[in-house]
Amino acid sequence: MTMAKKTTKRRQNDTTLPMRDFPLNRAFTFFEPGPVLLVVTSLNGRHNVMTASWTMSLGFTPIIGVSLGPWNHSYETLFETGECVLSIPAADMMEAAVGIGNCSGDRINKFKNFHLTPLQGQKVAAPLIAESLANVECIVREKPSNNGLYLFILEGVKAWYNPDREEKRTFHAKGDGTFIIDGETIDLRHKMTKWEDCI
Amino acid sequence: MTMAKKTTKRRQNDTTLPMRDFPLNRAFTFFEPGPVLLVVTSLNGRHNVMTASWTMSLGFTPIIGVSLGPWNHSYETLFETGECVLSIPAADMMEAAVGIGNCSGDRINKFKNFHLTPLQGQKVAAPLIAESLANVECIVREKPSNNGLYLFILEGVKAWYNPDREEKRTFHAKGDGTFIIDGETIDLRHKMTKWEDCI
Repeated sequence: MTMAKKTTKRRQNDTTLPMRDFPLNRAFTFFEPGPVLLVVTSLNGRHNVMTASWTMSLGFTPIIGVSLGPWNHSYETLFETGECVLSIPAADMMEAAVGIGNCSGDRINKFKNFHLTPLQGQKVAAPLIAESLANVECIVREKPSNNGLYLFILEGVKAWYNPDREEKRTFHAKGDGTFIIDGETIDLRHKMTKWEDCI
Repeated sequence: MTMAKKTTKRRQNDTTLPMRDFPLNRAFTFFEPGPVLLVVTSLNGRHNVMTASWTMSLGFTPIIGVSLGPWNHSYETLFETGECVLSIPAADMMEAAVGIGNCSGDRINKFKNFHLTPLQGQKVAAPLIAESLANVECIVREKPSNNGLYLFILEGVKAWYNPDREEKRTFHAKGDGTFIIDGETIDLRHKMTKWEDCI
């Protein structure tokens, strides 16, 4: 008699793991400030991750626009599988994010190379990144049109957040190889009279 | 005999004015970090300005995506005139930007109300904002498609920058009435081996 091998796949509903449920209709707040993101894809069990800073919030669902082109190894996987995880790295992951953005997944196992821990989410095959501040499982709502801009429209279907992470700052790419870390946060909620539903 | 009245329109080629030419093919660096922007429009000589944080860099030209809907007074003007100025406010303009985002140009002259100085640029009728860090004159390359996302694709045609402004930090909307001011800038240009053309 052989014992069934216990699965070692780490699923995010294990409460010893860092990511907690985050309200999906508030997940646009991860994207609206414009931080550098990691785009995680998976094809036939092989995970990949790329760095993206051409992104925007486009709806409260959340809907997110992400531009990546055929020159990115992730493009074909995102196009074919129609799903990904958008992961929000903290400022202490900046060097890893830049490293990830300067090599290609067709030659390197980036999860291994950059010491990222994949965690299985609930809605898509692509894994969450355990080290990130937050992760949003997404499906592709619109593939790029033929206008040469390579804009994917994604819809978030499940959001996760690590409330215990000490480093909560994100960072922003300037596009010239310099990066801006979040500074002071200013609360102007009392002035948002037209947008009370958002605060 | 009457003397011709000298025009008092302030044009930006007057060297006593703050804005200087900025290389158009580097203007994407204004947008890539995801700061809060001001969108300036003009119809029949009447200027208007709104605050926008659902924006993204989409190309080095520069190409910029901006989402604004028919509920914004600026929408119709942008749609009809096909041009605008994207203005990048500094952190010391945060309260003004939030005020601008919480009232409507159909009832208020926002330039007057928020003490903004319009300067005539070179390519479009909408004025630059003298107090901003930078301004980019833009034409509409694509109007929103019928996918409900109200995404305009803009192409920058002339960029301006004030090199003498002491406050050079921008700020980012979180979407919940709080705003993040730029903190420390980290130089990782030596790690951008794949993107040497950008640095």
